[in-house]
Amino acid sequence: MIILASASATRAAILRNAGVEFEAMPAHIDEAAIKHAGAAAGEAPGAVAQTLARLKAQRIAARLPDALVIGADQILSVGDVWLDKPESVTEAADHLRRLRGQTHTLHTAVCCLRDRQMIWQHVATPTLTMRAVPDDFIADYLAAEGDDCLSSVGAYRLEGRGIQLFERIDGDYFSILGLPILPLLGFLRQHGTLR
Amino acid sequence: MIILASASATRAAILRNAGVEFEAMPAHIDEAAIKHAGAAAGEAPGAVAQTLARLKAQRIAARLPDALVIGADQILSVGDVWLDKPESVTEAADHLRRLRGQTHTLHTAVCCLRDRQMIWQHVATPTLTMRAVPDDFIADYLAAEGDDCLSSVGAYRLEGRGIQLFERIDGDYFSILGLPILPLLGFLRQHGTLR
Repeated sequence: MIILASASATRAAILRNAGVEFEAMPAHIDEAAIKHAGAAAGEAPGAVAQTLARLKAQRIAARLPDALVIGADQILSVGDVWLDKPESVTEAADHLRRLRGQTHTLHTAVCCLRDRQMIWQHVATPTLTMRAVPDDFIADYLAAEGDDCLSSVGAYRLEGRGIQLFERIDGDYFSILGLPILPLLGFLRQHGTLR
Repeated sequence: MIILASASATRAAILRNAGVEFEAMPAHIDEAAIKHAGAAAGEAPGAVAQTLARLKAQRIAARLPDALVIGADQILSVGDVWLDKPESVTEAADHLRRLRGQTHTLHTAVCCLRDRQMIWQHVATPTLTMRAVPDDFIADYLAAEGDDCLSSVGAYRLEGRGIQLFERIDGDYFSILGLPILPLLGFLRQHGTLR
């Protein structure tokens, strides 16, 4: 049995579309506190994303030790600042004003646990350069996207008109969306969970 | 007015999702003959894809000279062989047997015409490495995908279980699907057709 320890509809869709059979179980951990502690301790964003992915998987693995549990997390860093998923359209506008004209990195972590032990982990780091869009462009964009802009940490959906925000995108598309599916499938095959 | 001179549902979806207003008009040209002539003359696949994109756009521009007409084409090359979009599941299986264990290139061309003149063109060349999957994997994959596998020149849909066929993918996701949307949007803004 494969469990995806995530509440993300996007991650579940990526895994389901790839033809993997699994069950999704959201794992509730205090992400904000862990991020805050990691940042205060001078940890790199990729390391903190790995910690968060592991903690979510461990939370589920404690209940279902026999399952193969997939944990995942994503942190956006722009310079020294880390952004959290926006909770309102106002906050999404703040994010976009912070990101415009800059290159940011998505630290997308994924790991697998079996018998409560970490048996595999991976971090992808796609980078995205946003155009220096004016305030009214951001306002029009958010009005068109509505609450859809809250589904991504950067307040953009590349599969929608969010693509108009960008000048340059480097890195794997699925890792940008939140799950490095290619290395994950490679591990699942190696582990004998997938053909 | 923007016209997409293409019958591809995938290309139309990419452009529509990006928030561009346009009308799609399929342009019928003898693609097979042009490819054959290009290959016989020793032309590079990227150059032939550009020719095909241009001819499709010209076919529409002849009727609608005032419109901005977008032409697009994609050629798959593996070694010296060029593959065409499969027309049956049997042909899709031939494609996958040819591609497995190899790295292939997608030559994805896009151009814009205004007043019958070419005003912009671009070719993206993502590369994809397929795993050396056995025959029964291909059979199971095609049985699961059905006619959906006929929508892509390589007989795979990365947004579906086609992702399981791959070891490595390098290049822009949208250019793999058939339209280099990021450079196209950049041109449309520069041209004043888009904000």
